[in-house]
Amino acid sequence: MIVLLKENPNEKQMENLKQWLQSMGLDVHMSKGANHTVLGLVGDTSVVDIDLIRALDIVEDVKRIQEPYKNANRKFHPQDTAVEIGPIKVGGGAFQFIAGPCSVESREQILAIARSVKQSGASILRGGAFKPRTSPYSFQGLGNEGLQLLIEAKKETGLPIITEIMNMSQLPLFEDVDIIQVGARNMQNFELLKELGRLSKPVLLKRGLSSTLQEFLMSAEYIMAGGNGQVILCERGIRTFETYTRNTLDLSAVPVLKSLTHLPVVVDPSHGVGISKYVLPMALGSAAVGADGLMIEVHNDPPHALSDGQQSITPAAFDELVQKVNRILPVAYRAGKAEK
Amino acid sequence: MIVLLKENPNEKQMENLKQWLQSMGLDVHMSKGANHTVLGLVGDTSVVDIDLIRALDIVEDVKRIQEPYKNANRKFHPQDTAVEIGPIKVGGGAFQFIAGPCSVESREQILAIARSVKQSGASILRGGAFKPRTSPYSFQGLGNEGLQLLIEAKKETGLPIITEIMNMSQLPLFEDVDIIQVGARNMQNFELLKELGRLSKPVLLKRGLSSTLQEFLMSAEYIMAGGNGQVILCERGIRTFETYTRNTLDLSAVPVLKSLTHLPVVVDPSHGVGISKYVLPMALGSAAVGADGLMIEVHNDPPHALSDGQQSITPAAFDELVQKVNRILPVAYRAGKAEK
Amino acid sequence: MIVLLKENPNEKQMENLKQWLQSMGLDVHMSKGANHTVLGLVGDTSVVDIDLIRALDIVEDVKRIQEPYKNANRKFHPQDTAVEIGPIKVGGGAFQFIAGPCSVESREQILAIARSVKQSGASILRGGAFKPRTSPYSFQGLGNEGLQLLIEAKKETGLPIITEIMNMSQLPLFEDVDIIQVGARNMQNFELLKELGRLSKPVLLKRGLSSTLQEFLMSAEYIMAGGNGQVILCERGIRTFETYTRNTLDLSAVPVLKSLTHLPVVVDPSHGVGISKYVLPMALGSAAVGADGLMIEVHNDPPHALSDGQQSITPAAFDELVQKVNRILPVAYRAGKAEK
Amino acid sequence: MIVLLKENPNEKQMENLKQWLQSMGLDVHMSKGANHTVLGLVGDTSVVDIDLIRALDIVEDVKRIQEPYKNANRKFHPQDTAVEIGPIKVGGGAFQFIAGPCSVESREQILAIARSVKQSGASILRGGAFKPRTSPYSFQGLGNEGLQLLIEAKKETGLPIITEIMNMSQLPLFEDVDIIQVGARNMQNFELLKELGRLSKPVLLKRGLSSTLQEFLMSAEYIMAGGNGQVILCERGIRTFETYTRNTLDLSAVPVLKSLTHLPVVVDPSHGVGISKYVLPMALGSAAVGADGLMIEVHNDPPHALSDGQQSITPAAFDELVQKVNRILPVAYRAGKAEK
Repeated sequence: MIVLLKENPNEKQMENLKQWLQSMGLDVHMSKGANHTVLGLVGDTSVVDIDLIRALDIVEDVKRIQEPYKNANRKFHPQDTAVEIGPIKVGGGAFQFIAGPCSVESREQILAIARSVKQSGASILRGGAFKPRTSPYSFQGLGNEGLQLLIEAKKETGLPIITEIMNMSQLPLFEDVDIIQVGARNMQNFELLKELGRLSKPVLLKRGLSSTLQEFLMSAEYIMAGGNGQVILCERGIRTFETYTRNTLDLSAVPVLKSLTHLPVVVDPSHGVGISKYVLPMALGSAAVGADGLMIEVHNDPPHALSDGQQSITPAAFDELVQKVNRILPVAYRAGKAEK
Repeated sequence: MIVLLKENPNEKQMENLKQWLQSMGLDVHMSKGANHTVLGLVGDTSVVDIDLIRALDIVEDVKRIQEPYKNANRKFHPQDTAVEIGPIKVGGGAFQFIAGPCSVESREQILAIARSVKQSGASILRGGAFKPRTSPYSFQGLGNEGLQLLIEAKKETGLPIITEIMNMSQLPLFEDVDIIQVGARNMQNFELLKELGRLSKPVLLKRGLSSTLQEFLMSAEYIMAGGNGQVILCERGIRTFETYTRNTLDLSAVPVLKSLTHLPVVVDPSHGVGISKYVLPMALGSAAVGADGLMIEVHNDPPHALSDGQQSITPAAFDELVQKVNRILPVAYRAGKAEK
Repeated sequence: MIVLLKENPNEKQMENLKQWLQSMGLDVHMSKGANHTVLGLVGDTSVVDIDLIRALDIVEDVKRIQEPYKNANRKFHPQDTAVEIGPIKVGGGAFQFIAGPCSVESREQILAIARSVKQSGASILRGGAFKPRTSPYSFQGLGNEGLQLLIEAKKETGLPIITEIMNMSQLPLFEDVDIIQVGARNMQNFELLKELGRLSKPVLLKRGLSSTLQEFLMSAEYIMAGGNGQVILCERGIRTFETYTRNTLDLSAVPVLKSLTHLPVVVDPSHGVGISKYVLPMALGSAAVGADGLMIEVHNDPPHALSDGQQSITPAAFDELVQKVNRILPVAYRAGKAEK
Repeated sequence: MIVLLKENPNEKQMENLKQWLQSMGLDVHMSKGANHTVLGLVGDTSVVDIDLIRALDIVEDVKRIQEPYKNANRKFHPQDTAVEIGPIKVGGGAFQFIAGPCSVESREQILAIARSVKQSGASILRGGAFKPRTSPYSFQGLGNEGLQLLIEAKKETGLPIITEIMNMSQLPLFEDVDIIQVGARNMQNFELLKELGRLSKPVLLKRGLSSTLQEFLMSAEYIMAGGNGQVILCERGIRTFETYTRNTLDLSAVPVLKSLTHLPVVVDPSHGVGISKYVLPMALGSAAVGADGLMIEVHNDPPHALSDGQQSITPAAFDELVQKVNRILPVAYRAGKAEK
């Protein structure tokens, strides 16, 4: 970390700052230039609150050299992390299709979709039981009933399941859930992240609507700092001025994240674009830029889905998608090769 | 609500749609134009899931005439709502200064600031006990200890207090808290909003970093739908491409919100700009555009504040701010007068 | 176009509106519902100024059914347009690599790069002569001298050339230029677009930093309305809150544009991400989502490039990129197949 | 300027860099810390292309201490600049109302509005002759005819006039125009800015839809670098995700700009919010945060205005606005007082 002081800093303040930084266990190297004095901090700077230093009277600016995340940082963990769900690996070279309906609506629906997506090549089943909805008057999911139906589908098909948690009190219900999903709106629900950090269960963390990649990694760090290293990152579109698509799917996030972290990165093109006919091209693009998997909303009857029907694709379209993505994979970008 | 059908819709589908809409208690008026058929829905359309209708095969687009919020809607509640905390009113013509440190740091600190801001004209004391921080390694607040110190300051000064809740499990600790604050990152933590809707305690809801005004009002609606009508809205800056200021304070949100809802609207310029020297002008601007109050971070020693020191102002600067804002208030915009 | 009137509109105003709309050659169909009256306008509504109607006292809202662009609209021109530069086709199934340095710096530099990128598979040579720079003190390009060097490189290698125009007075210099580029900052320089519409030379139009896809197509429409149908659209990243990458490359723009328009769409990943090591993955992604070509900055000595060195790749890296993209193309998304 | 080198830089490259920087007339002070070497550059760093240095192999990051603009910088010109149009001063303590129709539509219209706004207190008349419109099919302004009518209104009322230029070829027509306006879409039309820099006529420069404040000041610098120091900055709203208002009016830009530059700053709330009923509150807010003037669209018959009728206010509403703003001015923020 480099601390740039203002011109002609007060000597006493400078000494105080130096001592305070040293008290945090940092080595402080001072270099005085013609006009500016620069402090170089060596040691574990992730414990340093950058805003706190920046607020000091004598400080002009502070610049991190080292990223503020440790556990998620590829520098300290160069090998890809593969999150394992039984025999299934997310990351580390494997590619997984996570598929299923936006919401679990009925036994018949979830079983039919589960069988179908498994047949097509999905290895993980998704389905919403607790649904975060903008309006209190919209369908909020079947709740625990939906969760039980999802577990039933898991038992019948053998597919591990992923579903979204909305608060910690729901945690006891998630025992048979294989991957816990944290939605975009909860990406900075730090209390929830801390709680999930105490588990030994994989967590899929979705990027917040207006989260920078660094904030995204800091949220992963919250989970990892608690001891749970099984985090899967999911790009699902960010909010921009463009209104034609529901969100703007940021595919550049994939190679950038893969460069900054060893964690697996999957893409959810269904929420990313929000229009079913663009799910296929964006799935192909996600695979090409080096994603470790896809999360796709599939519905047996999209026009009658009780939520997000507009962005769901049919089982037949999903089948085609898997085949086409599988043809991209051998020629897709693999992080680590192109970089120096 | 107006539903625009695609050209040449299938008659049977059209009949199904009509019956389904009627089953929700809506009157459906069909008007066939030269190329397009338009359905007009009359009744309580706030229960209708607009995405669901839009996803239907035969539907081209759906347009709400009526906003999707009822309880928060000024159309159904033309009079300003004043949220009352004992003798203090937020909204309904009154103007309140909410002031205090970003974080409660010590007994000495919170008591000194509390006395000082009261002296200057603040009527409500703010102070963070549980702090949402981007990094797990940053100071997370004193927690319950901070809350107890805040309550002590309340007892000594008589000022009602406001502090942020981060999850429902903290609720029992908030008994002596007068206004519960929901932070920007939790604006769409719907489970928390539902829980707060069951209380009979004022809630200050901060606008999310990338929330539209309609989403902001829908989150207020979550709380109100549960029966708790004492909601104060707080504009605190949105995320844009501009990096000079910490956020972009959207002052146009104030008159727009005051036009759409009867709820009080306050502004937090401290987080909105994030640089202490711009807090005063933005406070004056907030008052001028018609805000019902201000929420200001005040610290007795900003350069050594343990969080957000960069945006805090000193007690002396706060004193000047109150005086200057008080001179703006008599000539400020009052919603309801200029509008037709 | 659907015009929704406010409740209980004044009969006389309604009649005036109807007559005014008819005077523009439109058929007006009026349908009165329970609460709302809706006007359906049939005819060439692209001439209608939607803001003008929306401003009328009796109008609640206006909704276009038909897009406001005609010449660029795929509905009226279902077949892909291929822009032809001699034997080279951009669009219509062909895929082209446009490559070269950000700025032309010297005869030696442009000739060396031209030969190299041709060898690797580029079919069009790019190079900046007039450079739009944020600072008046930054290198502004070699101007006409750079243009002459580019033309020399064209003569030697046979590669057609593309370079950016910054204002109409430069037009006489562009006689030997094969494709005129309009930069992102000039996307809504309407006077320039009108002038280019009078030419019979291909124009590559870059998307503005904060332009919606509809605005982008309207700018293409400006050129086409003047009679010049040879427009190539170029996605080059939009401005968002994310600062890690220079811009946010919006790859979903590719399939969406290909669905809305018959014009060819190419992607510039060099400006899109602004960091050389991410150019390769984003080039692969661009090909996978169905782009008609790529525009890549190549420099023989990126660290000493006089502009944009940070995002340029070496000739060797370009060679690898072409090979890898060529392996993606056979399995890439092709618009028109997946859509219904 | 501070240049931070990567760990263990190559000695030869470091020496080359040092010599190259010195060749630009800069003093280079090298300070070697424990892990990092930092170069401090002293001298006129505004000539240095920061991207160029950042692209070098051995450079980790570059940080400007000094802003990249000189002429516009308040540090080098602490006193407020007042742009003088005859006896009228914009900036330097004076406050001006610039008012008039979006487009000049007829002699009758412009004369009536000119007389009316003068009566109410406007000191400068605005009116569009050449209109930048998103659609080639929308009304593009009366052109030179409109300009002549505006000049006629100037002669009759004595009000100086401001109107927008769209390209340099229109310049000869602007001889009798007192202030030349550069629209938001042309803020980075650098060729136009250079040309305006050669004039000795005031220029009002509007902030681009997605321009940072630094880019805005760099565009002012383009004009000033050419020798024309009479630049008025105009905040007119930026593009964000919010769709309720036409743009998001960034009032924090006013005190920030006033702190960074000595140039006058005015606000255009009409375009900023785009809805007439919010023009008054945002005008009051603009005055309160310290703007040097307002630019207001006034139309004698807004619902029939040929452009932007939705955001225009009537002459009567303008009269009320002037009175209310005049009551804010004595208690408004004045930059320079509150800052330390």
